Amino acid sequence: MSTDAGREDRVLDRIEAFRRRRPRLLDTVVTLSHGAGGKASAALVDAVFVDAFRNPELEQLGDAAVGVLDAGAAGGAVGVGAAGGAVGVGERLAFSTDSYVVKPLQFPGGSIGHLAVHGTVNDLAVSGARPRWLSAAFVIEEGFEIARLREIVADMATAASGAGVAIVTGDTKVVGKGSADGLYISTAGVGVVPAGRRLGADLVRPGDRVVVSGPLGDHGMAVLLARGELALEADIASDTAPVHRMVEALLAAAPATRWMRDATRGGVGTVCNELAQATGFAVVLDEAALPIRPAVLGACDLLGIDPLYVANEGKFVAVVAADETDAALAALRGQAGGEAAAVVGEILAEPEGIVALRTAFGGTRIVDMLVGDPLPRIC
Amino acid sequence: MSTDAGREDRVLDRIEAFRRRRPRLLDTVVTLSHGAGGKASAALVDAVFVDAFRNPELEQLGDAAVGVLDAGAAGGAVGVGAAGGAVGVGERLAFSTDSYVVKPLQFPGGSIGHLAVHGTVNDLAVSGARPRWLSAAFVIEEGFEIARLREIVADMATAASGAGVAIVTGDTKVVGKGSADGLYISTAGVGVVPAGRRLGADLVRPGDRVVVSGPLGDHGMAVLLARGELALEADIASDTAPVHRMVEALLAAAPATRWMRDATRGGVGTVCNELAQATGFAVVLDEAALPIRPAVLGACDLLGIDPLYVANEGKFVAVVAADETDAALAALRGQAGGEAAAVVGEILAEPEGIVALRTAFGGTRIVDMLVGDPLPRIC
Repeated sequence: MSTDAGREDRVLDRIEAFRRRRPRLLDTVVTLSHGAGGKASAALVDAVFVDAFRNPELEQLGDAAVGVLDAGAAGGAVGVGAAGGAVGVGERLAFSTDSYVVKPLQFPGGSIGHLAVHGTVNDLAVSGARPRWLSAAFVIEEGFEIARLREIVADMATAASGAGVAIVTGDTKVVGKGSADGLYISTAGVGVVPAGRRLGADLVRPGDRVVVSGPLGDHGMAVLLARGELALEADIASDTAPVHRMVEALLAAAPATRWMRDATRGGVGTVCNELAQATGFAVVLDEAALPIRPAVLGACDLLGIDPLYVANEGKFVAVVAADETDAALAALRGQAGGEAAAVVGEILAEPEGIVALRTAFGGTRIVDMLVGDPLPRIC
Repeated sequence: MSTDAGREDRVLDRIEAFRRRRPRLLDTVVTLSHGAGGKASAALVDAVFVDAFRNPELEQLGDAAVGVLDAGAAGGAVGVGAAGGAVGVGERLAFSTDSYVVKPLQFPGGSIGHLAVHGTVNDLAVSGARPRWLSAAFVIEEGFEIARLREIVADMATAASGAGVAIVTGDTKVVGKGSADGLYISTAGVGVVPAGRRLGADLVRPGDRVVVSGPLGDHGMAVLLARGELALEADIASDTAPVHRMVEALLAAAPATRWMRDATRGGVGTVCNELAQATGFAVVLDEAALPIRPAVLGACDLLGIDPLYVANEGKFVAVVAADETDAALAALRGQAGGEAAAVVGEILAEPEGIVALRTAFGGTRIVDMLVGDPLPRIC
């Protein structure tokens, strides 16, 4: 035993010099080592992610964020930490995910970082949930500049803080040069649906009104123009923004609201087709009522793109009860981003499952689902 | 009004022929249109994903899965649907995410589909949570074969069903040829931590034992050999598997268990370094006690790779109280995948934050964190 103890002592002496410190990030570009889960990964995560997304769950750096929320106790909610909320009796959870592959990564009005937060926040919001916690998983191409990664991560942090959500868990993978286009981000989100709140296509009735929360097509046209492949310049910025405060204002003012969906890929045209299919009713839109900025309309005209199919990242479509329409509009218009909210159509019993557009010239045309992809990698 | 009504009738007649049907998938490869959010996207989602992952939440196809679990009501849990569980009083949620970029996509013992489910299930499990719901987001390279996508999605469905979790929400993006390497999958997971269960590096004490749940290095070596770049053949299959049942058995038999981590990227060597850093104690491993299959050990020797750094996808490291070690081992060995569980080391007070390996020849060497990346894109 004394021999063993002596050996142990020598071991202790010899390795005393190796006392562990968290590794520092010295690189200027991302390398395969940063995705290997070892020392370089730890340095990247410490220097880029933990710093930007600072919150108690993330700093634990375990495999999962635990205790992001506590279940409700009898008679009251159990408090939680930084995330600031709990699930009370009768409340339900919502869970959503999206990958973001937008090209270019940065564009007028925002970046993939903003989209990755707002997109998932908005998916939760239009399902009736109050967004709370996000995860973020990065697939990074070898050689990506760390300074640029920091900018995008800072955009995510700003977007999360602005939306009142916490990024509590994450992952980083690195793929070789030529195996990605810079950076892809996948976020998932968990939100809490208040007790008694229910939205669904099954609640939609003929006579209901279709409302959009603001001008259409800004995001898609901003990204398209930012690619610089078209001989066209216009002052158009992405509308990337969280919509959950607009949603809450709408539901407070118009509690009979039936259904909501954010009009991202595929635009309002595709969202309305999903609505028509899910309800079996007709969605009839009025072209003259669609809020579209002149610059977006002009660019769409020049490029032969129908603005109904252009992506938005801070806009949603809601179906409201006819007698709550005025209250719904007033509530939306009182919110940042909702100033140009408009009633753009109505639900009719027939023809089943069809979206039609009453044009400004008095005609009517069918609005089909988006076919093909005029704008790939828009979000 | 009669004019309006007449026009409406004509509209109805004209569009009667366009009655909506869900589009059918006729393509054999993924195209950019499948990522556009329109008709082709709907066809792909319907034909490939909804069918495989069938559950009530996913079939709603909204922006988020709502009601995946209900908060506990006073005196008892509120039942939920297919996901089969609820959050009771005092329970907490865990939330985790990972992106999967393994190359090749299919290998002996599994595929990226198995990894995408097991990896996230295991992250939740080692945090003490019972895994319940997963999200899945796909970034697919244009031209990817739909038949192969179906195989991988079927692997995910099999893995989810085997692990008792539901894939309740998802997303599909498509990027152009050369902007990804086939397919990347990001999953996030939500699990429930039972009331009173707590694990953490702060609970670890000198004298505790380090246990691994089974043979090390199978996954990493299986993937490396599957690449076919080495003039080496060996009968090695990935160990990809869910560990949550092993974790539950361990915690039932050894309730004082301090800390757990699944040993994926970076292997047991890196996990033990994270443990040493988080606790400030020394982790001393016995080389002779490490369970490693002869084929894996042989391949590692030939290639000059330290098996301590090779990835596993169905193994975890646990720190258990010394007096519960026998019970812990017996419990693990009674579970599928845990038959070769072993005590591989112990926690010492000093030297602070160091991992040391007592070699089979009586020497001792430092086990640093993984530096560089001998095996990129292993998961």
